[in-house]
Amino acid sequence: MAGQQTRIGVVAPGSRIDAGVADRVVEIAANLYPDGAVALTFHPQCFLSAGHFAGEDAARAAAFLEIANDEGFDALWFARGGYGACRIAEAVIPRLTDAAKNKLYLGYSDAGTLLAGLYKAGFAALAHGPMPGDIVRNGGAAAVERALAYLVERAPQTLEAGLSPDGKAAAFNITILSQLLGTPLQPDLSDHVLLLEEVADYMYRIDRFLFHITSNPGIRKAAGIRLGRCSDIPPNDPDFGQDEEQVVKHWCAVSGIPYLGRADIGHDIDNKVVPFGRIPTA
Amino acid sequence: MAGQQTRIGVVAPGSRIDAGVADRVVEIAANLYPDGAVALTFHPQCFLSAGHFAGEDAARAAAFLEIANDEGFDALWFARGGYGACRIAEAVIPRLTDAAKNKLYLGYSDAGTLLAGLYKAGFAALAHGPMPGDIVRNGGAAAVERALAYLVERAPQTLEAGLSPDGKAAAFNITILSQLLGTPLQPDLSDHVLLLEEVADYMYRIDRFLFHITSNPGIRKAAGIRLGRCSDIPPNDPDFGQDEEQVVKHWCAVSGIPYLGRADIGHDIDNKVVPFGRIPTA
Repeated sequence: MAGQQTRIGVVAPGSRIDAGVADRVVEIAANLYPDGAVALTFHPQCFLSAGHFAGEDAARAAAFLEIANDEGFDALWFARGGYGACRIAEAVIPRLTDAAKNKLYLGYSDAGTLLAGLYKAGFAALAHGPMPGDIVRNGGAAAVERALAYLVERAPQTLEAGLSPDGKAAAFNITILSQLLGTPLQPDLSDHVLLLEEVADYMYRIDRFLFHITSNPGIRKAAGIRLGRCSDIPPNDPDFGQDEEQVVKHWCAVSGIPYLGRADIGHDIDNKVVPFGRIPTA
Repeated sequence: MAGQQTRIGVVAPGSRIDAGVADRVVEIAANLYPDGAVALTFHPQCFLSAGHFAGEDAARAAAFLEIANDEGFDALWFARGGYGACRIAEAVIPRLTDAAKNKLYLGYSDAGTLLAGLYKAGFAALAHGPMPGDIVRNGGAAAVERALAYLVERAPQTLEAGLSPDGKAAAFNITILSQLLGTPLQPDLSDHVLLLEEVADYMYRIDRFLFHITSNPGIRKAAGIRLGRCSDIPPNDPDFGQDEEQVVKHWCAVSGIPYLGRADIGHDIDNKVVPFGRIPTA
């Protein structure tokens, strides 16, 4: 960090945000740190639009590299999820410099694809947690404030309460983790407690994702699985007959991965911060 | 085969069928082969119901093993897709005997999980093609008749027209292939032309599945990809801006896998038969 100020660059490797989102988050940061302890820069790429994405693949990749490789930023904050990080991951990761390695990266959902690839590449400061886009949720300021408190202060109260200071952890959206297994982005998660969450997918698909995840030999070396919230699950036809915890317990039993209970993460304003690896000593 | 009769056993590792489906398919078989060249046996498990599935995992696994390991059957025909094959695959495959190895297996969609695992296990007679459950489609008799003509006669006109007699092929539903990558079910598909189809999924998810599939080092050894039909795709919000062929071409270009054009397979009555590996010599 430069002096007392944490300089945060925001990019959107997946879906776009509105300028209004950026304005509200800047205002929250100014209120939370009136002494100027934080400087937030939203890369103009965040507001681009190209079909599903915040700009074409090349524009999103270039913006990510600009922020990541700039020594003038202490942290890279993913603007929101949506979809698109996987389309730039393999292109950007080999082009990251030492300036990128010394940065903190914070995001979740679609951003998990890049967090995974960066973890695989040996990056040390990665965390699963709220993003600027969460401001649009009802009560979303709480999520944004939590993220800022982690980005600026590594505030212990922002952390998921079940994390052990003695062990390693990682957190993922269930779909996102499934979709990087068996690719060059899959990190070594041996001995990690995996915190998993999902949103807006059918229970039968969650079941199949859990089959996929728990059948992977690398994942079977995990220390255990903790289940975050699975929200906005559409009705299954016919009724699936099991809820998300029964599903995860089933696949943990089949695979021999210990099931370690629930986790305080999800696509909501209560989503707590989960650093990848060991909890950093502030 | 025993004398002139092909004895086909039907099981449902995923979702259930109604007795009416079985009756209609038996009638079609009797009309197509009035000389008794085919004997169709629907295992009672096909009609069980347990939540999403045609009976509990144990019942589906037992029925699959009963038919597969019975020398009295020449072929195992998957009743329909839906969801559930992955829940029994790793349990049943190690318990298959030589009687199972000498059988023909035909199905698609969810059944592809077992076809993949059997191919990995060295089974020689596996094919992607219509199932009894297709009878409920408008004009579904054509699909069922095609399947029977392959099961009984290996009729060349049932085969997907673009298959090369000199090369190897395999066909999968896109979701199903994605969900077995990096698991013990993933077969060696080096030098195979992969025929891929999808149904009822968002374009952004098809894009992500293609990222996943084409990023896998094993899949990158394929001889090429041919795209079957992608039907009933819900509207993307915002518009994805690319159709399924543009998506597949994109990922083929990124991954270096040759894109070889369209394929005559899909979740419809025109779904042609694709033997795994080389086309069998009748």
